[in-house]
Amino acid sequence: MNIFSRLESEVRGYIHSFPTIFKTAKNAVLVDENDRSYIDFLAGAGTLNYGHNHPVLKQAAIDYLMQDGIVHGLDMATSAKKAFIESFEQYILKPRTLNYKLQFTGPTGTNAVEAAIKLARNVTKRHNIIAFTNGFHGVSLGALSLTGNQKFREAAGVALGNVHHAAYAGYFGQDVDTIAMLNKLLTDRSSGIDLPAAIIVECVQGEGGLNSASIDWLKRLSALCKQHKILLIVDDIQAGCGRSGHFFSFETAEITPDIVTLSKSLSGFGLPMSLVLFKPELDIWRPGQHNGTFRGNNLAFVTATKAIQHFWADQSFQTELAQKSELVSRRLQEIVKKFPAAELTHRGRGLMQGIAFKNPDWADEVTTQAFQLGLVIETSGSRGEVVKLLPPLTIEPEILEQGIELLEQAIEHVVQVYTQANLSQAKIKSTVKVHGVVS
Amino acid sequence: MNIFSRLESEVRGYIHSFPTIFKTAKNAVLVDENDRSYIDFLAGAGTLNYGHNHPVLKQAAIDYLMQDGIVHGLDMATSAKKAFIESFEQYILKPRTLNYKLQFTGPTGTNAVEAAIKLARNVTKRHNIIAFTNGFHGVSLGALSLTGNQKFREAAGVALGNVHHAAYAGYFGQDVDTIAMLNKLLTDRSSGIDLPAAIIVECVQGEGGLNSASIDWLKRLSALCKQHKILLIVDDIQAGCGRSGHFFSFETAEITPDIVTLSKSLSGFGLPMSLVLFKPELDIWRPGQHNGTFRGNNLAFVTATKAIQHFWADQSFQTELAQKSELVSRRLQEIVKKFPAAELTHRGRGLMQGIAFKNPDWADEVTTQAFQLGLVIETSGSRGEVVKLLPPLTIEPEILEQGIELLEQAIEHVVQVYTQANLSQAKIKSTVKVHGVVS
Amino acid sequence: MNIFSRLESEVRGYIHSFPTIFKTAKNAVLVDENDRSYIDFLAGAGTLNYGHNHPVLKQAAIDYLMQDGIVHGLDMATSAKKAFIESFEQYILKPRTLNYKLQFTGPTGTNAVEAAIKLARNVTKRHNIIAFTNGFHGVSLGALSLTGNQKFREAAGVALGNVHHAAYAGYFGQDVDTIAMLNKLLTDRSSGIDLPAAIIVECVQGEGGLNSASIDWLKRLSALCKQHKILLIVDDIQAGCGRSGHFFSFETAEITPDIVTLSKSLSGFGLPMSLVLFKPELDIWRPGQHNGTFRGNNLAFVTATKAIQHFWADQSFQTELAQKSELVSRRLQEIVKKFPAAELTHRGRGLMQGIAFKNPDWADEVTTQAFQLGLVIETSGSRGEVVKLLPPLTIEPEILEQGIELLEQAIEHVVQVYTQANLSQAKIKSTVKVHGVVS
Amino acid sequence: MNIFSRLESEVRGYIHSFPTIFKTAKNAVLVDENDRSYIDFLAGAGTLNYGHNHPVLKQAAIDYLMQDGIVHGLDMATSAKKAFIESFEQYILKPRTLNYKLQFTGPTGTNAVEAAIKLARNVTKRHNIIAFTNGFHGVSLGALSLTGNQKFREAAGVALGNVHHAAYAGYFGQDVDTIAMLNKLLTDRSSGIDLPAAIIVECVQGEGGLNSASIDWLKRLSALCKQHKILLIVDDIQAGCGRSGHFFSFETAEITPDIVTLSKSLSGFGLPMSLVLFKPELDIWRPGQHNGTFRGNNLAFVTATKAIQHFWADQSFQTELAQKSELVSRRLQEIVKKFPAAELTHRGRGLMQGIAFKNPDWADEVTTQAFQLGLVIETSGSRGEVVKLLPPLTIEPEILEQGIELLEQAIEHVVQVYTQANLSQAKIKSTVKVHGVVS
Repeated sequence: MNIFSRLESEVRGYIHSFPTIFKTAKNAVLVDENDRSYIDFLAGAGTLNYGHNHPVLKQAAIDYLMQDGIVHGLDMATSAKKAFIESFEQYILKPRTLNYKLQFTGPTGTNAVEAAIKLARNVTKRHNIIAFTNGFHGVSLGALSLTGNQKFREAAGVALGNVHHAAYAGYFGQDVDTIAMLNKLLTDRSSGIDLPAAIIVECVQGEGGLNSASIDWLKRLSALCKQHKILLIVDDIQAGCGRSGHFFSFETAEITPDIVTLSKSLSGFGLPMSLVLFKPELDIWRPGQHNGTFRGNNLAFVTATKAIQHFWADQSFQTELAQKSELVSRRLQEIVKKFPAAELTHRGRGLMQGIAFKNPDWADEVTTQAFQLGLVIETSGSRGEVVKLLPPLTIEPEILEQGIELLEQAIEHVVQVYTQANLSQAKIKSTVKVHGVVS
Repeated sequence: MNIFSRLESEVRGYIHSFPTIFKTAKNAVLVDENDRSYIDFLAGAGTLNYGHNHPVLKQAAIDYLMQDGIVHGLDMATSAKKAFIESFEQYILKPRTLNYKLQFTGPTGTNAVEAAIKLARNVTKRHNIIAFTNGFHGVSLGALSLTGNQKFREAAGVALGNVHHAAYAGYFGQDVDTIAMLNKLLTDRSSGIDLPAAIIVECVQGEGGLNSASIDWLKRLSALCKQHKILLIVDDIQAGCGRSGHFFSFETAEITPDIVTLSKSLSGFGLPMSLVLFKPELDIWRPGQHNGTFRGNNLAFVTATKAIQHFWADQSFQTELAQKSELVSRRLQEIVKKFPAAELTHRGRGLMQGIAFKNPDWADEVTTQAFQLGLVIETSGSRGEVVKLLPPLTIEPEILEQGIELLEQAIEHVVQVYTQANLSQAKIKSTVKVHGVVS
Repeated sequence: MNIFSRLESEVRGYIHSFPTIFKTAKNAVLVDENDRSYIDFLAGAGTLNYGHNHPVLKQAAIDYLMQDGIVHGLDMATSAKKAFIESFEQYILKPRTLNYKLQFTGPTGTNAVEAAIKLARNVTKRHNIIAFTNGFHGVSLGALSLTGNQKFREAAGVALGNVHHAAYAGYFGQDVDTIAMLNKLLTDRSSGIDLPAAIIVECVQGEGGLNSASIDWLKRLSALCKQHKILLIVDDIQAGCGRSGHFFSFETAEITPDIVTLSKSLSGFGLPMSLVLFKPELDIWRPGQHNGTFRGNNLAFVTATKAIQHFWADQSFQTELAQKSELVSRRLQEIVKKFPAAELTHRGRGLMQGIAFKNPDWADEVTTQAFQLGLVIETSGSRGEVVKLLPPLTIEPEILEQGIELLEQAIEHVVQVYTQANLSQAKIKSTVKVHGVVS
Repeated sequence: MNIFSRLESEVRGYIHSFPTIFKTAKNAVLVDENDRSYIDFLAGAGTLNYGHNHPVLKQAAIDYLMQDGIVHGLDMATSAKKAFIESFEQYILKPRTLNYKLQFTGPTGTNAVEAAIKLARNVTKRHNIIAFTNGFHGVSLGALSLTGNQKFREAAGVALGNVHHAAYAGYFGQDVDTIAMLNKLLTDRSSGIDLPAAIIVECVQGEGGLNSASIDWLKRLSALCKQHKILLIVDDIQAGCGRSGHFFSFETAEITPDIVTLSKSLSGFGLPMSLVLFKPELDIWRPGQHNGTFRGNNLAFVTATKAIQHFWADQSFQTELAQKSELVSRRLQEIVKKFPAAELTHRGRGLMQGIAFKNPDWADEVTTQAFQLGLVIETSGSRGEVVKLLPPLTIEPEILEQGIELLEQAIEHVVQVYTQANLSQAKIKSTVKVHGVVS
């Protein structure tokens, strides 16, 4: 029995999907202890938008360490933090004419969400928050109450309250207008839905299965919030920092959320960092009222600053990103068409796209097969039915094509096996899960 | 107006206590942008037990980055994680004959606490948790419900539930037996206190004002938990990793908690990392049920591994630590005696000791004065009445003495000023807060 | 200032709608202290299905008192209680082949609902309950969480939890299938809606505005509950005891709820009494676990027994009831047609029918006018937009016609006044509210 | 199998203690269907302070029915309600110089408590309520959260929140000052106890085991509330209406609670009725915001009015009451002394006194024996360890003596049996439970 199964809790998860021990990585390629290479279409679940060990960011980190820069600074003022705020203002906020205050929270996405909903509740003096079906916002108790998935919810051990889950864009089919429904529930003083402090939304639901809200839906959601004096929180932890095609996932909808949460790729280098943005008039925090030991992870400030300067100072990165997104769209649509019997569906936008399967078992098998072929890729969706592509945004185009090629092979294999009538499902499973070296 | 007050949320806190911009640091000395040096008696609120930029840990981090080690690994298996688990088992668990499973949570203390109480609730199928007066366990919603301080609680914006706050050791005076009281409440089926899943305790309450539970009290608490089949959680986030004098704060009491939370100094280098330890029979987690983007902060695993190997492989570090603790005790007792009119009290143990003032304003003034003199030190306690010494455990003895000397000067100044009858308090305040350059 | 406004709390309500002091009553006629008579189309909000002081029931009560029968019996066995159970089994349960256990709760509807949801939660070990938009189930904390109306919810002073409000039949229009929507939310393991212990429903929403669920909708709701192993609770407090046309409002849908709550007209005489019915296999109560001082209101048992024997032993009462319901339907439809400009809508079934107005102010004015004319009638609905007819089921046909005639006059008056363009609304209000003698 | 065990829910309780079917009753004597008589020391758990079927009250009820008085009036103004308010003001409030508004709630004690805590929370805008160990306030969800006993709490099926349970007078022994403890918890801003809207207290805990708060403790509690701006609610549902020796249980302490709840004996005749009293400045209710079908139980108003006029217009009733209380005290102390080996303790005051046993099984056996001997009496206390005497206040002195005599015989029997070493407990139980005819 290896040390992971002997000493690490049963809570470990990805280790089962990718049963090997990874050692090094560079941009979109992971290498394990047996020197086997894998193309990375997971990218830290969207945390490594600029790839593993980007040389520019790495050098910045090393330089900072070499000169004994402050690594841990609580929420004291440091040179590294100052530089981050300046760059964030100059390259992110100003060009988008966004006027936000910055709150550095504990460096986890869930902590940013906790801060956001606390603030919204305190500003409005209301307890309720509306979250959406299939949304994922974290697993600490406040964020967990917003998260839809039962696997996480059941772990709470207590009832989750103060949240109403409403239907996301397209949840009941494209012809059912979920904004109109929400408006009716909020207008009706007898619906049982207490007027919320905030509505929290992901413009693209990453964990929920790459469901995207249309620009129109987002505009109307924003208008609905204004009409009922509800704060709009965009949780941009997974879709933000370029993943959706722009720095913020809400940019194309031309809306200005009241509060925005960022984390994952914010540090640019996979280092823990989180940030809450909000309109200045909402800043009613008292000093230290939402604290946290690591809210001043200065090494992350250093790489985050460099990432902003390197990727977001001009349009070149976004242009490249658009091309890659286009490439992925085209290729996925080809795959969908190639296997009509499999009834696949194309999902998502930017570099968070994927393919939905009717049967979640197929999707699961595809990722298992893909790993055998050297591709790290995961499923998402309420039933795990969506194979989700989250490559680094910086992935070399040829590696991107190569990864999609592997994915196509995996799908082809699974479609063949499953559609052979006389093969039992049990046999399939035993066939494909053979190389697991870690459990 | 500088960029911090212009763009950073009002939630920033320490920046007000230490109004300068820090730039570099080494062991127990911070240097600001004006090249002024400060002795650090805060140490990241107990996060930098091995000081700033310890050369051995720093070199390990740089080496790892240079070889393109995995920085961000979700909860996949990596070489760095394997090395940490091995070292933790060899140097921490085995010598103490502790048999724990390890859960890596989101890298904040509050996230470790959230995981701990979820697990306790799920294992026992009970909702209630008993926490103690003046306890601090974090500010995400689950952890916040355990935290005593109203400043944090009020920020929740919703009622905090599923927790009963019981009186800590000595809360009602040393002659009131709070364990007997708790036993009565738990035995009485009509007390209104629902049988809890767990009792969560800090052996020394860091934020709560350096209140220490005696060995006897801890032993009886442990026995009480066994008697009522309640899980005992020791929150060792601040007092652990050597701060109390041993790696775990509960070692001297010879008890074995069911669950232990660690964070702060665990990575050894100020990098975000958290860990929950629990008895193997409690490990009922389902894969991925408590997740988090940064639960695999591999750079932290690297420095944490090195810290364990460097400091905990033999007794020398603890011996040195005992000597420094002894030094601090002796000097603080001298200070207490030196100012009888001020009615000071000595608090704490290990290298988390301090001086309690009758009037919190005095304590506040002392830290302000100390900063003027070049010493970074903070208050704690429900009224902020305790000046708390949290120097790096690795602090050079002469720097430690020097810091205490500065503290004594600050106290002397404040005692003089406050005991001069004809000086108004308003005037005092305006005198001492003059050098603030950042707000 | 009269004694009511001087000493009774501002919480008093109907006194404002009917500003006089009532003294005596007989069947459908109320008489005030000035000997003025009023036709009663409110009937204790559905509590007096057999009218005021029905002579048969009154005699039974007097006889019982005369012989010193037990008036208050806690939940001890008494002769009166035995007689009630026997009659209820013989005339209500057996003819409908219903197999229920009986729980006598505190004699308020809200207490019956509290017992019902406790039982459902304990049987299923689930916390969530699904209630419907515009539902009303009481105002004690558990029942209040199920109730939709904000006026009541806001009074809680705490957040109401453990309930999800779903859309009732026809809530989003007749073409939106709210059962299919609910099924999707319950089937999707990531919708955020925790699998509920029970769904609680009124077959006709009395307070909610006389919204009726169709037979098909109720059948499908029942099937949905079975499919997801959810208990179905029919709250028949207002619609039960004949009000809907049959003893139980769910009879026509040929469904068998798992739990049924009864109160209001159960005692037949306006005396407080409540009853929860449930399938025997759900009876996991421990003795005395849901208690209440007045759960053995024996005088109510006496009148309730007599009411069941008198009205439900054969079909004659129901036949008469059907005729009156038909009469009301016909007349209300005539009224709707008579005032096309007013855009009135006919609502409800049985003897709980009404007329919905586009503008709630009109409905309010109609009841004010009606009272001037000698008719006691109230509004319901989330905006108070529905004038609701709840006459005693025993009302004499000519009094029923006469009451409807008064209602028609009141509507005519209001329609005329409101449609006269040059009359300000303020003037209208001052015109019609003149005779209030009590406030 | 009789009809109760066949059709009535397992929740039925007293039927097990008193296994017969009661038919009639007069003052302190119950008669069953076999014409066997029992002395009633339970009196509807304190609901029949004026005995069963008091002739004066009975006549008033019959007269009212005969003249077709309004029986059910919602919260409309009626002659009967007016008469009650007038009498309550004249004979109860004015002589005690109490200035309260009256709120008629649903006619259960629990509903009065629900209204009281809603009001307190709305007035103060705080969510927390402090209730006491061993307190009983009802079992609807809001009241249940205040109630201490686990048997009731567990039935909730959801976590009970927004309440902190503090130690009642003498809970930790007579030498532990629980008011000082509470003051410390409320003063300390870091205790974890949120500043409450209200403190709810019973001056004598009826269900909790006849624990009495001293006059001094009540005065200090009242002062504590004033100091921290917390509302004081006295729940006088069981101890009020004369039971404690005066109309209100708090009169002797010379305090004026902000809110008082009354029910049980308020109607005087065992008819359901409840009332909340509060200081006029707290009356922020909106019309109809706390409603309930039976809040206008006019038959109860009639008997309540008569009871107040008959018993409380002069001092004679209270004088007689004092004599009976004195008699009970004397006799119970004699019994305590008579059986030193049994280590009995005398408890309570007024006509709510009792005897506490070390072993609850003995208390249980005593009530079983007593019933055999013709005495209806019950236990209370967290373990059921207190045999509680709640005779009608109007009981004839000779019947009172006779009842105590029977109690003494029962105790004697139990003491003998239990102290005979060679009799197994199992055998005892089978001996004494023989005559049960109903289950």
